[in-house]
Amino acid sequence: MVSTKPPSGMRDYLPDAVVKRRYVLGKVESVFQRYGFLPLETPTMEHLATLLGKYGDEGDQLLYRVLHRGERLSRILTQDKIAIADLAELGLRYDLTVPLARVVAQYGHQLPRFFKRYQIQPVWRADRPAKGRFREFYQCDVDITGTTSLLAETEVVNAISEVLVDLGFRNVSIALNHRVVLRSMIEVTGIGQALEGTALVAIDKLDKIGPPGVRDELVARGIALEAAQRLLDLTTVAQDKDNAQVLKALRAMLPVPQAHQALDDLEMLCQLTAEAPAGPRLRIAPALARGLSYYTGPIFDGSLGGGGRYDNLVGMFSGKQVPAVGFSLGLERILLLMEEQQMFPALPMAAQVMVCPLPDTPLAPVVGLTSRLRQAGITVELSPEQTRLGRQLAYADDLHIPYALIIGPDEVTQRIYTLKHLASGEQQQLDEAGLLAALQPA
Amino acid sequence: MVSTKPPSGMRDYLPDAVVKRRYVLGKVESVFQRYGFLPLETPTMEHLATLLGKYGDEGDQLLYRVLHRGERLSRILTQDKIAIADLAELGLRYDLTVPLARVVAQYGHQLPRFFKRYQIQPVWRADRPAKGRFREFYQCDVDITGTTSLLAETEVVNAISEVLVDLGFRNVSIALNHRVVLRSMIEVTGIGQALEGTALVAIDKLDKIGPPGVRDELVARGIALEAAQRLLDLTTVAQDKDNAQVLKALRAMLPVPQAHQALDDLEMLCQLTAEAPAGPRLRIAPALARGLSYYTGPIFDGSLGGGGRYDNLVGMFSGKQVPAVGFSLGLERILLLMEEQQMFPALPMAAQVMVCPLPDTPLAPVVGLTSRLRQAGITVELSPEQTRLGRQLAYADDLHIPYALIIGPDEVTQRIYTLKHLASGEQQQLDEAGLLAALQPA
Repeated sequence: MVSTKPPSGMRDYLPDAVVKRRYVLGKVESVFQRYGFLPLETPTMEHLATLLGKYGDEGDQLLYRVLHRGERLSRILTQDKIAIADLAELGLRYDLTVPLARVVAQYGHQLPRFFKRYQIQPVWRADRPAKGRFREFYQCDVDITGTTSLLAETEVVNAISEVLVDLGFRNVSIALNHRVVLRSMIEVTGIGQALEGTALVAIDKLDKIGPPGVRDELVARGIALEAAQRLLDLTTVAQDKDNAQVLKALRAMLPVPQAHQALDDLEMLCQLTAEAPAGPRLRIAPALARGLSYYTGPIFDGSLGGGGRYDNLVGMFSGKQVPAVGFSLGLERILLLMEEQQMFPALPMAAQVMVCPLPDTPLAPVVGLTSRLRQAGITVELSPEQTRLGRQLAYADDLHIPYALIIGPDEVTQRIYTLKHLASGEQQQLDEAGLLAALQPA
Repeated sequence: MVSTKPPSGMRDYLPDAVVKRRYVLGKVESVFQRYGFLPLETPTMEHLATLLGKYGDEGDQLLYRVLHRGERLSRILTQDKIAIADLAELGLRYDLTVPLARVVAQYGHQLPRFFKRYQIQPVWRADRPAKGRFREFYQCDVDITGTTSLLAETEVVNAISEVLVDLGFRNVSIALNHRVVLRSMIEVTGIGQALEGTALVAIDKLDKIGPPGVRDELVARGIALEAAQRLLDLTTVAQDKDNAQVLKALRAMLPVPQAHQALDDLEMLCQLTAEAPAGPRLRIAPALARGLSYYTGPIFDGSLGGGGRYDNLVGMFSGKQVPAVGFSLGLERILLLMEEQQMFPALPMAAQVMVCPLPDTPLAPVVGLTSRLRQAGITVELSPEQTRLGRQLAYADDLHIPYALIIGPDEVTQRIYTLKHLASGEQQQLDEAGLLAALQPA
């Protein structure tokens, strides 16, 4: 017998889970729309050439590839040597940023000059499943293309912050850094540019493995102990101090013009959001690196998602540079935290009333009445089987349906129906107009 | 340079297309919910063992398979002989019915006894792309499991009919037939059971190739000319007559008890829906066969989708028979027809106002005001660049935004703002409370 479980790392969402997911997505989407972002959807599959080389080596290995089919595949399987690249040219979407960059490259002239788009779709990564980490998961992205103005960063972090407020996350902060600041740190500590990527990967683990762990890892990756210690000093400067003090310390330790420009940008971003939702949440964090290789400017990271500026990604597709900045929220992490912290309101999904025809009731008029109640906007369950009343009422109760509409042959003839409140047992005799009034949602 | 087009048969949905899709899906979902259906979502990928053998040979060939990865794949590629089955164990969802059957088999005890579920998700078929036929497309399904009562068929066809009414499809009919009637036709014409499937495939083409074409195809598939003609006579009986006349003619021509029971069911289904949305739409169609092999009872088909009863599919997964009936609407066909027949209302997606800071305006208070307007539920665009006013107003106009909120340094100091209606050029001076009142959505 075939296994009826979903594939490893993937999940079935039964109705109560879907209702919670939609509650969150409704809040997210409502904020994104009020901020003027427009919806985009892209296909589940992309050409592998679009995806490969955008997420680092590790990302490439986590891509799901879709096998060729039919005669083409049969021909390939007769080859003496078969390479992986022979077997597939399509892969599943890995994030929502690369598809956006492709879309901007393809449809640039049809899109607004400053394209503010939101996109809420699943992505797939063949990662090892763990708590809160799945192989199919939803991302909720906002991005703005077409401008290098810091107003774009401002819009993006404010929208994300307002989502968090609306969902009830009062104390979630967003770490802020700048790729140019990171590059300057590498430069002033004398770590060669060739080791920049590897150094940033180690620095990014500061929260997890602490300064000694990062120092060991930097040295293990071929960086001199003294340089490693200086980089560590830079990334842990003014820790737990406020943004102004962190900026002041970094300015003193990074006597490089481009670093000062980048630090000015971070300061400006804090100022621009001062009276807005992101203001109290932004924390300048010199150790924040973020793995993805396409970032070029400010970068953001929080427990529920992250993002940053990537001014060169669209150009990789079109040859024409289009600046861009965005932020991606992870739906699964939001749901996990909201579940743990019991942040969901009551989300009722039961019908308002179950129509219960007694065994000898002619059904066509019952079905007709049921339809008219539904057309009036009332959520109505029709008892699936015309069994004895007690059985039908017990089933209505199982489903948490508050009312039963009991219909026997006399009720059909007289067009007066019995509406029973199941919890109290109270009954009313009502005609159709009375039913509509009694059941109409507030 | 990499192609920036989506893969063949798949599409990017730019904002205006997404808005139309969501308009339709909103109507569909609203009806499904009022009918008491609960939402289910299943993973994009299923075990191939779940999918294979459920859709006929042609279906199996249209499945997208997901390639193994990493060391496992490398090992396979060193084999002397590689079969397709060695390369993949996961495939992309082909419909929403088989995943439902798997879910009922897996979670039966957690689900309501009569599980009324709706599911709106994409499916993938590696079909040759054509007008209105894509390789990634959305299905909107309702199904009821756990009962053989015709009230389940009634609910399903009424829900689908009400969706069609709500979307504005006034004259779409739903063809109705019964698998047992079809089987009886095969029996009385003397076509052996071994040729039943092949005969039904030919009969299903009656609309496309006409009676002579079907006769030729039946003969070509090994059925005697006389039997072919008798089958053709049966499936074209009382053509264009009303349901009662078709039923009467079929009863006369099919002197088989199980056929009469099935015809009674069809008659009862027409009666049950007489006062409900499906009533005027159901047309008994003896030539309707529907390709999928899992149907066992009444079957439905319309230009926008189809369905039927499948009492054995859940049992293929769990060993325990669970009766079920459902209907699947195709989103793409609905959209195509609504586009052709101009059935969409105006679906505005522009913001209500664009906030336009003059070049020398301090931005933090502007960002703060923008946030407060959005928190009040107003959809607000913030000009992405602090350029000269004429340029900002022209951009607002490009985006069809009706109002501009013009803010210079004096406005920031005095907290009195200029709201300009772009079409008329009219301007008002308003404080923040006045702005909220003027822009509040109705």
